[in-house]
Amino acid sequence: MRIVVPFKKENAKSRLAGVLTPDERGSFAMCMLRDVIDVADGFDLDILTPSLLTDDCIDDIHRHVLLSDLGLNEALNEYLLKQAECNCGHVMIVMADLPLIRKYHLAEIACSDSDVVIAPGKGGGTNILCIRDPSRFRVDYYGTSFLDHLQIAHENDLTVAVYDSFAASTDIDEPEDLVELLLHGHGGSARNMLVDLGFVVAVRNGRSGVERSGDRVVSHKP
Amino acid sequence: MRIVVPFKKENAKSRLAGVLTPDERGSFAMCMLRDVIDVADGFDLDILTPSLLTDDCIDDIHRHVLLSDLGLNEALNEYLLKQAECNCGHVMIVMADLPLIRKYHLAEIACSDSDVVIAPGKGGGTNILCIRDPSRFRVDYYGTSFLDHLQIAHENDLTVAVYDSFAASTDIDEPEDLVELLLHGHGGSARNMLVDLGFVVAVRNGRSGVERSGDRVVSHKP
Repeated sequence: MRIVVPFKKENAKSRLAGVLTPDERGSFAMCMLRDVIDVADGFDLDILTPSLLTDDCIDDIHRHVLLSDLGLNEALNEYLLKQAECNCGHVMIVMADLPLIRKYHLAEIACSDSDVVIAPGKGGGTNILCIRDPSRFRVDYYGTSFLDHLQIAHENDLTVAVYDSFAASTDIDEPEDLVELLLHGHGGSARNMLVDLGFVVAVRNGRSGVERSGDRVVSHKP
Repeated sequence: MRIVVPFKKENAKSRLAGVLTPDERGSFAMCMLRDVIDVADGFDLDILTPSLLTDDCIDDIHRHVLLSDLGLNEALNEYLLKQAECNCGHVMIVMADLPLIRKYHLAEIACSDSDVVIAPGKGGGTNILCIRDPSRFRVDYYGTSFLDHLQIAHENDLTVAVYDSFAASTDIDEPEDLVELLLHGHGGSARNMLVDLGFVVAVRNGRSGVERSGDRVVSHKP
């Protein structure tokens, strides 16, 4: 079993531009990657990225880096092909923005008897995708990738399990996602960074969101 | 173990006003209640509501109805008190807008050894709350009820388990929640109603949402 985490630091987390500066977004993305690397401890790990990563808090990352200038789908499908050629076994693709996942989530997914395991994200996304035989699957991220991956599995006569987890479904993309990290995070790098930046859980008009120090409301829905 | 489902049909699902008419919202809320009643089959069930429910598709509901004019917290806390007085055992409070839950979710929660089990909703909500001893707990919904319920358990020296489920976390409140029901629903009343109304999954600019027949975009985020 290998875990591969695609990652792109350049202009990372652009949808958080309203609440984090460009530098903060880059650091926040790296902290979420750090959290994912931590829970992947014990697995063989590759970080698939277009550029070398330099960050104090990710000092042990370089030995995992695989450089690729390809787009997300092309890079991952090339990766799957190489894994298939070397008969390297299962591949688990884990998105880099899942700071709520824990070791037991990856262990449970790895133990599945199904040919393909999908942990869906909100809005039809695919947050974790585990493939027993990488020669028989190709990925198709963006849009409703959950449906696309079900279809690809069906076309290849592969059995599918859907992994039902709130933590695994919570990718941090939008400002309103930050409250989930504050509420349900377990002290990882990304949550600590938010706390250090002054983010707190706040309730206005019965709705929860986050505020940054100084009571500037940043993520309440209208 | 009793399951209690608080429900209010009047002005139900007001945040869906942009995509459903008032009549449709009432019917949709009833369909979601129907789906929850179906998965609660096998448990003793009470529907806590301020008014009698009349609906063709809920012909067997009346025997479960407990009328209460109190607010959500007051009605549920009065209910817990009565259950405690009659030593009726565990109480599981299940919100009425969880059309993705299945029987196995309720069974797993019911089997927990913890004094309190919380299935969190998005944004700090509490979607399912199971209480072993109703004499030692009171509810506090609205706002970040997840944190409030953790605190109440702590104050009463009760052990807590957080039930990690994407399905149980998905309460249908906002237009963007509808896509989860279309994608992950299993043919229940609420999903069928959406399909009958012409809702389909659609992708614009790489983001998934729902459209209603005629290609009128109704739930894509900006």
